[in-house]
Amino acid sequence: MPAAFKWRLRVRYSDTDISGRAHYSAMFRFMEAAEDEFLRSLGLPYAAVEKAKSVSFPRVHVEAQFVAPLRYDDVVDMEVTVERVGETAFTLYFDASKDGEAVARGRVTAVCVSVETDRPVLLPGELAEALRRAMGRED
Amino acid sequence: MPAAFKWRLRVRYSDTDISGRAHYSAMFRFMEAAEDEFLRSLGLPYAAVEKAKSVSFPRVHVEAQFVAPLRYDDVVDMEVTVERVGETAFTLYFDASKDGEAVARGRVTAVCVSVETDRPVLLPGELAEALRRAMGRED
Amino acid sequence: MPAAFKWRLRVRYSDTDISGRAHYSAMFRFMEAAEDEFLRSLGLPYAAVEKAKSVSFPRVHVEAQFVAPLRYDDVVDMEVTVERVGETAFTLYFDASKDGEAVARGRVTAVCVSVETDRPVLLPGELAEALRRAMGRED
Amino acid sequence: MPAAFKWRLRVRYSDTDISGRAHYSAMFRFMEAAEDEFLRSLGLPYAAVEKAKSVSFPRVHVEAQFVAPLRYDDVVDMEVTVERVGETAFTLYFDASKDGEAVARGRVTAVCVSVETDRPVLLPGELAEALRRAMGRED
Repeated sequence: MPAAFKWRLRVRYSDTDISGRAHYSAMFRFMEAAEDEFLRSLGLPYAAVEKAKSVSFPRVHVEAQFVAPLRYDDVVDMEVTVERVGETAFTLYFDASKDGEAVARGRVTAVCVSVETDRPVLLPGELAEALRRAMGRED
Repeated sequence: MPAAFKWRLRVRYSDTDISGRAHYSAMFRFMEAAEDEFLRSLGLPYAAVEKAKSVSFPRVHVEAQFVAPLRYDDVVDMEVTVERVGETAFTLYFDASKDGEAVARGRVTAVCVSVETDRPVLLPGELAEALRRAMGRED
Repeated sequence: MPAAFKWRLRVRYSDTDISGRAHYSAMFRFMEAAEDEFLRSLGLPYAAVEKAKSVSFPRVHVEAQFVAPLRYDDVVDMEVTVERVGETAFTLYFDASKDGEAVARGRVTAVCVSVETDRPVLLPGELAEALRRAMGRED
Repeated sequence: MPAAFKWRLRVRYSDTDISGRAHYSAMFRFMEAAEDEFLRSLGLPYAAVEKAKSVSFPRVHVEAQFVAPLRYDDVVDMEVTVERVGETAFTLYFDASKDGEAVARGRVTAVCVSVETDRPVLLPGELAEALRRAMGRED
């Protein structure tokens, strides 16, 4: 069984706030970068899918839990797993860690929307399949 | 019973993304601005509390649900209510609407942390009291 | 002669960085908000102009000079003046102050671009006129 | 003579705006990431220098010129050169390109400030030396 997808990034100065920690909203940018690279690792980068199918993937639900602070210049390991694949939407789960210690967990549910009608449409078949295959990685 | 606290703001160009919507992470900035102003309305602006008590209020859990898109230049009405006040943490609930129609809902749990030890400490008494009083507004 | 356009806003937590100051990139968001409201004060909000004329206004040059720090919860007064109005582009100048003391100065040159061709086009006549009239304010 | 420092990154969804381009403020985050990595390449990462010397490096002047649009998922090559090293401040110059074509140029002047007094102090000797050595790279 293949391992979960991993993406490494770094906390930048502009990610921090006056408390000395990374501002919590930075975690959502980290999740987005990891998501981008996860889709690319499936051979289906969002940019290509969105263009080919005239769809976009707005988020309908996002959440994050913060268990330890991130600070400037910290290296963050993002792990991405597929939690659910529905007809028009899917949910990704994120584990963020630093030196092997958990710092945050998050979850994003994106829905596939037609650019023309702004209404939910079926996930492109290729994408749904790839996500379902990737889900097996967590079994 | 007093009404819930309200704060009005506007979607800026830098809040939008290529899909034409406000990027979902903008909602967390909107919630933060509304939270700032809500605390100020209680007579206890964060900036003053943090300085006086040498504490900060990192988030331990945040979530948001998006029910309708926001677009550039939209006026957003943020409504803030106190959902829970604990010993060291509290939870605020946010209702975002546009022209009276719901666009998003969110929830933020902040914990009071000592700047010196970086560990949770009791909420400043005055703040806990003010939040509990404000909670009555939802009854 | 009418006074320069003014817009007041506040430094939010997410605008700050680990140094305790507002991160310099926040100033560009402040300038953008002030620019939005300045255009609205001319009766020509960007959102309406862009839609009506199928144009957008990407920046070709921006700069800022920082003379004093901004901190969390500071109130910032942005003053906007029109510096130059050309055929396809215009330049706005920004003065940011806190309690009457200068904190930053900035300048933004935006070019009017056709959404269809992605190439510069003449500024909409009404906008060029309004900007030239506003320029008189600095005389 | 060694080549200029290079750093590669990617335009994320949250970097874009409704026009379909990367919002201009994203370029300043790109420059900051490149600056971080450039300092690290000199063996003097900001995080370490700031901690060791109780200093920070606020920007006193920044500017950028945009010559071609960046779009979602574009790969951006940032090139960093040292333009000037003074007593208390230094200036970095940035060249951003995509597939070998220029997209933007920028310049950042940072001043070394004592955390305690919030006033300019001499650049740490090691940093000034390393920057001067790196400056030779442009000759």
